[in-house]
Amino acid sequence: MNVLVINAGSSSLKYQLLDVDTREVYAKGNCERIGIDGSFVGHEEMGGEKQKLEVALPDHKTAIKYVFDILKTVDKPIGGIGHRVVQGGWYFPESAIVTDETLAQVREVAPLAPLHNYAEADVIEICRDMFPELGNVIVPDTSFHYHMPEHAWRYAIPRDVADTYHVRKYGAHGTSHRFIWRTVHEMMGDKTHKLVSCHLGSGASLCAIQDGKCMDTTMGLTPLDGLIMGTRCGTLDPATVFYLSREAHMSIDEIDTMMNKKSGLLAVSEVSSDSRDIEAGAAEGDEKCQLALDMFNYRVSQLFAEMAASMQGVDTMVFTAGIGENAPEIRADICKLLGWMGVKIDAEKNAPRSDEPRVISTPDSAITVMVVPTNEEYMIALDVEELLG
Amino acid sequence: MNVLVINAGSSSLKYQLLDVDTREVYAKGNCERIGIDGSFVGHEEMGGEKQKLEVALPDHKTAIKYVFDILKTVDKPIGGIGHRVVQGGWYFPESAIVTDETLAQVREVAPLAPLHNYAEADVIEICRDMFPELGNVIVPDTSFHYHMPEHAWRYAIPRDVADTYHVRKYGAHGTSHRFIWRTVHEMMGDKTHKLVSCHLGSGASLCAIQDGKCMDTTMGLTPLDGLIMGTRCGTLDPATVFYLSREAHMSIDEIDTMMNKKSGLLAVSEVSSDSRDIEAGAAEGDEKCQLALDMFNYRVSQLFAEMAASMQGVDTMVFTAGIGENAPEIRADICKLLGWMGVKIDAEKNAPRSDEPRVISTPDSAITVMVVPTNEEYMIALDVEELLG
Repeated sequence: MNVLVINAGSSSLKYQLLDVDTREVYAKGNCERIGIDGSFVGHEEMGGEKQKLEVALPDHKTAIKYVFDILKTVDKPIGGIGHRVVQGGWYFPESAIVTDETLAQVREVAPLAPLHNYAEADVIEICRDMFPELGNVIVPDTSFHYHMPEHAWRYAIPRDVADTYHVRKYGAHGTSHRFIWRTVHEMMGDKTHKLVSCHLGSGASLCAIQDGKCMDTTMGLTPLDGLIMGTRCGTLDPATVFYLSREAHMSIDEIDTMMNKKSGLLAVSEVSSDSRDIEAGAAEGDEKCQLALDMFNYRVSQLFAEMAASMQGVDTMVFTAGIGENAPEIRADICKLLGWMGVKIDAEKNAPRSDEPRVISTPDSAITVMVVPTNEEYMIALDVEELLG
Repeated sequence: MNVLVINAGSSSLKYQLLDVDTREVYAKGNCERIGIDGSFVGHEEMGGEKQKLEVALPDHKTAIKYVFDILKTVDKPIGGIGHRVVQGGWYFPESAIVTDETLAQVREVAPLAPLHNYAEADVIEICRDMFPELGNVIVPDTSFHYHMPEHAWRYAIPRDVADTYHVRKYGAHGTSHRFIWRTVHEMMGDKTHKLVSCHLGSGASLCAIQDGKCMDTTMGLTPLDGLIMGTRCGTLDPATVFYLSREAHMSIDEIDTMMNKKSGLLAVSEVSSDSRDIEAGAAEGDEKCQLALDMFNYRVSQLFAEMAASMQGVDTMVFTAGIGENAPEIRADICKLLGWMGVKIDAEKNAPRSDEPRVISTPDSAITVMVVPTNEEYMIALDVEELLG
């Protein structure tokens, strides 16, 4: 089955057309600046060059139409559409076929992720209207965390407030963490029971997975929580919001924007939100860049230990996503900080880049350390096949 | 030297008169409901009964005058006064003699702890005015954390905001954690290098102490952060504040009050903020009480691992404060959750109550587990003697 995977943002739309059985990607791309001047599509077909197509994209509907037009040249019949949804909220313990009801649910939980869910719901609706012959599937990024134990997901705030407004830990990157478990389990079989999946990208989260089940994760009600990220501050005393509101006279929107868009690695380094720029800066002796890296690695090591505690142990550690897959020095530094837990990596195995999942720890490491390239699109396509196939 | 230790709140004032050399407590008590109808003083002298004295206390000045009057019967000359100050902010890397300058600093940092510092500063001023012959010492609860490494204290928010408003991790319970290190070091000598001090009371925090130096702690800008406490929610996604502001239309003050005064064990159990009531409820089969205990213990185990990570290891774990000293079942449950780290306690050593510091782990435990009754007043008195003696 060929599946079109769509990941819509408020002004962007990523797409990938792939064959679920062979995992072959026929085409992929991204529509950028939808509804903004200067919109374009970056498009790439298997074996071809990446093209930048300047095209007017006044709205998501135009973008989707354009994507379907461009995919005609690939000439692979589309069997179904999988939609990444950032926030499934208190619905969606798993992926679900789009119906009037499930689509309404995506909108109902949208206040938890307003920048994403409304756009995603609109795109789902457009796809249904334009291509009524195709099935659509909702794949929320929170589903994997839905069943974590109550002592992990519940916040210690009054139950009436928590219940009325559905305030709890939802987590994120669930599709990636689920893919990681699946891949590692295929490779390692019964050697892996307690895995900490370290999804380190410009967004970053850890997930404690015991025998395939999420036990805890570092993101919370929203993806602001947990690790220090590209532009997000991660966990800090929630009273910081009260304090800045009173003392700095900042509005809630200003503090929200600051903590989500202007904090994290960007704020500490004052150079970039991209770890590659920061590593380059640190290599040249920039102290703020070095501190940004130190803080990032330190928090990964602390929250790794926290995730291990949630499973009362850990046998496997996996690095994935942009930083996790491509930054051997950051991996080495984090593993060094975890030496006290018996983590030991092989420098030669850690160094090379590869698209293959692989073990980088030494045989005598107490924890098996792996690098596993994530593939959320494949996981989404798998769900589409399972539900529509 | 005899020291009077004062711990003032906005409507309360605790006091203790003790001999620094013998650690003997001559008298102690608390003035309650200052400025409110129904004020009283609970007073106790060495070897005597606790008395409840109903007395009008319209303000802190009257309360202090009353305390000095009542202490005359004890007939021990006071050599100096030590003031517990909740928040030393960006001043006070250590305790300091009261001068015009240091007193102004306590007021300058008060926005970080408005409910405490203003009252404390007022009481210091009253003491200076009323008893000009006595030296006064400021003992901030944050000083012990002042020198923790920058990667631990810095928040990943824009540097101009952090600098202008002095936003960072300050921690709390520093005087208690410092006492714990001192006591354990006296007992264990060179066996202890990496200690996690678990101050578990109605307020609760952990502190990672390496060779006497704070490496990290669980409270943040304010004492709201970290563990689940009697009425405080502890760490949660800071975006929860944005979300409740928008969706529940709660004001900052309402959310602040909710998270500080109506959350924590009280909110989860819906029975009490007191762990004794919750343990009783759980024993009778109350599921909410059981969940409150489970969440409390779970978070202690997670943050214990986090503190261990900050030192890249841990050799000693100490329980202290109300719950830590007096709740053997909670200690046992937490240690059970930490079995994966090699923690093993001796049930017979854990069971009895005692005022003596003691080891409760088995000889083959990877981590030495101790119960050490805290004594913040003694630590404050020691600082007074050192600075004034």
